[in-house]
Amino acid sequence: MKKICCFIFFLFGFVFSQNQDSLFIRKIYNEALSNGSCYRNLKILCKQAPARLSGSKNAGKAVLLMFEILKQTSDNAWLQETLVPHWERGNQEKGFVYVNGKKQPIEILALGGSVETPKKGIKAKLICFNSLDELRKSDENNVKGKIVFINQKMDEKLINTFDAYGGCASIRVYGADEAAAKGAVGVIIRSLSSSEDDFPHTGVMVYNTPNKIPAAAISTNDANTIQQFFNEKNEVELFMKMNCVHYEDTISHNVIGELIGSEKPNEIIVVGGHLDSWDNGEGAHDDGAGVVHSMEVIYLLKKLGYKPKRTIRCVLFMNEENGARGATTYADISKENKTEKHIVAIESDRGGFVPRGFMVEGDEPYKTNCYQKFQSWKKLLEPYMLHILDYGGSGVDVGKLRGQGLALVGFVPDPQRYFDVHHSKADKFENVNKRELELGSAAITALVYLIDQYGMN
Amino acid sequence: MKKICCFIFFLFGFVFSQNQDSLFIRKIYNEALSNGSCYRNLKILCKQAPARLSGSKNAGKAVLLMFEILKQTSDNAWLQETLVPHWERGNQEKGFVYVNGKKQPIEILALGGSVETPKKGIKAKLICFNSLDELRKSDENNVKGKIVFINQKMDEKLINTFDAYGGCASIRVYGADEAAAKGAVGVIIRSLSSSEDDFPHTGVMVYNTPNKIPAAAISTNDANTIQQFFNEKNEVELFMKMNCVHYEDTISHNVIGELIGSEKPNEIIVVGGHLDSWDNGEGAHDDGAGVVHSMEVIYLLKKLGYKPKRTIRCVLFMNEENGARGATTYADISKENKTEKHIVAIESDRGGFVPRGFMVEGDEPYKTNCYQKFQSWKKLLEPYMLHILDYGGSGVDVGKLRGQGLALVGFVPDPQRYFDVHHSKADKFENVNKRELELGSAAITALVYLIDQYGMN
Repeated sequence: MKKICCFIFFLFGFVFSQNQDSLFIRKIYNEALSNGSCYRNLKILCKQAPARLSGSKNAGKAVLLMFEILKQTSDNAWLQETLVPHWERGNQEKGFVYVNGKKQPIEILALGGSVETPKKGIKAKLICFNSLDELRKSDENNVKGKIVFINQKMDEKLINTFDAYGGCASIRVYGADEAAAKGAVGVIIRSLSSSEDDFPHTGVMVYNTPNKIPAAAISTNDANTIQQFFNEKNEVELFMKMNCVHYEDTISHNVIGELIGSEKPNEIIVVGGHLDSWDNGEGAHDDGAGVVHSMEVIYLLKKLGYKPKRTIRCVLFMNEENGARGATTYADISKENKTEKHIVAIESDRGGFVPRGFMVEGDEPYKTNCYQKFQSWKKLLEPYMLHILDYGGSGVDVGKLRGQGLALVGFVPDPQRYFDVHHSKADKFENVNKRELELGSAAITALVYLIDQYGMN
Repeated sequence: MKKICCFIFFLFGFVFSQNQDSLFIRKIYNEALSNGSCYRNLKILCKQAPARLSGSKNAGKAVLLMFEILKQTSDNAWLQETLVPHWERGNQEKGFVYVNGKKQPIEILALGGSVETPKKGIKAKLICFNSLDELRKSDENNVKGKIVFINQKMDEKLINTFDAYGGCASIRVYGADEAAAKGAVGVIIRSLSSSEDDFPHTGVMVYNTPNKIPAAAISTNDANTIQQFFNEKNEVELFMKMNCVHYEDTISHNVIGELIGSEKPNEIIVVGGHLDSWDNGEGAHDDGAGVVHSMEVIYLLKKLGYKPKRTIRCVLFMNEENGARGATTYADISKENKTEKHIVAIESDRGGFVPRGFMVEGDEPYKTNCYQKFQSWKKLLEPYMLHILDYGGSGVDVGKLRGQGLALVGFVPDPQRYFDVHHSKADKFENVNKRELELGSAAITALVYLIDQYGMN
């Protein structure tokens, strides 16, 4: 009898707490959808500090703008100094294609980190490869002295566009090194875009060898056109002129604000996105959305009068795009700090699209049970069309905390349109839908609430 | 031992068939995403036959255009005659607001089915209500001789925008009748839009009483502005001039194409959308998407060399927007036809957004088991991010078949952006994402394949 009573009592407690949670999550959504501030904040960030690549004037402006807003709702807010690289593309690039000697302009866009061309530009024969692998296997006598064009397509058959991106991001990151190894004098790549569009998409590239050749992207439509020139056996040459400049590393900041926990203030729940963006757009989806999502967690919980048990910290990381120096600084400082214990870090860096759920991974002690923990919240999250609660990758910034004994979470918005705008001039405020953005903020806030209530054990 | 053998055999058969299904569904997606025709077809429909309201020249053009394409891949294709209403808005409407006598223009858009104003227009005091209920409860002495403005907002807190639409569509459908009952001379409504935008959204209205007053929509931003005039206690008048014409009913057509079943040709699986659209946009999401989704089922199965067991029939219904006469005709003919038996009818009429799943309801013998049937396919559909397989409503057109002993299915794309464009000039081809549309076609084709393989019993 006693056992039955205990069970009933336990069951009652469980149902009661689920009901309390359900009511509070409903409040979060109501507030986010009726009186949310994230869309307004995104407009400020995108319109007043677009093109905020690390080290740029606008990156500094973004730091101040978001700090000003975040500190209004935080118990504590501060700037965390970090050294960042400073690369600029300089004056606009110039490109021409010569088809059997006939010249036509083409829009080229330097990849982030590329060296400049000589002042007068480079003109050379173009040679086309359909993949990085094809380039690697090619005879260097055919490549020497030429400009390499890598026309590798994102695989449209993959349902998750991030898988398709992962499958060919190496052409952008390592294309220059691979082409240089064969004696090429420059490289252009097909933009990593899941649509056929008329503008190039940039992104980071790295040199691992001293032989640095200039690297640029062209639009997917231009890539198709040039491919056609080759298919028709034309002789194709390319002229490229780029004016990139590498400056000294410079001081920048992560922006941090937190609500202090009332019961376990030393247990930290981080939620973050990155403040920097590429220099050719407004960084609205990448990652203005993640920035305002994360700030909105603090805003909504404060607005609802919620007193967290644990400390809930919003971190706006600087320099995700070309170095992740901000995240590294944050992780280093966290490692040194013996009074704090991060239990979870959540990242939003997949755009402001309609939420589908979360992916979770982690170190021990959470490695094995984080999935079950998330699954136990399924019934609370499904009414909000959050169906994905799976094992999976989190993000570049929070990933730097790996090994510090915490769970890492990636917010998963719908992936279909992300690479249409990613790293391009189309990544602007007008391409973010207000409701989709607000639903993202609410989803992340609901998860933070549940983690705060129940921990990750 | 025999039992164990049987069980193993059964299990093996089950696993084998699931694997076969999984492979075929993968083929469907590959084909849809690499070589699909739905996006191309949508462009033809939207650009060559936009504004295809029933009875219009463009509606007739849409019939011929889609018939021409559908018959290329169908075993059988035909046009099914149906009588449809023919209403036109005539010359563009004119509207002015007078705030304390000061005149300013306002964009008004006649609701579908509205009567015209007198030739010189109507000018009257405006009176504002926040809901249809508020209007119903009002004192008719306050309303008499005025133009009624119903400023009821779609509830942004509801996660599914279709619920919010359902919650206030009555202001559009019955607003004129309710206002006329109080002696009003005209009615304008806040557009049924889930965003704040600058263009009005139209849609059907009906008169159930002989006292017909003109009815129009204004944009949500204009609604907010006018509300502000009232909040500030200004005297507000409205001038409206509309030139609508009701013509005689006219002959139009449903467009039908099918693949004939090899084993049970008399068992029919219908998949459909509606060919007509409102007259102020291109009808891209509503319901060009449903049209090309449905045609793509036939296209993909034919292209993959699939021989269906049952007959798979694509029906492009005419006149969903203001009468559903095409669907009624189809259902009447189906009821008379004793040699055919419809087992399922699937409708796509919620836009070309990223697929989330399906809702199913139905008559006996499927009423109780259709949910379990759909759930049994969960594992096959989840890899394609199709998580919703629930009981729920199907659609206006296939709903006309209710009572004929079949299951009714509604395709569920993500609902967040639908009412941003619904029934407005923003519902155009450029606002449909290629991948999202293609994923929709593939999802519906996968479901049709499973139903064809396993029936609904």
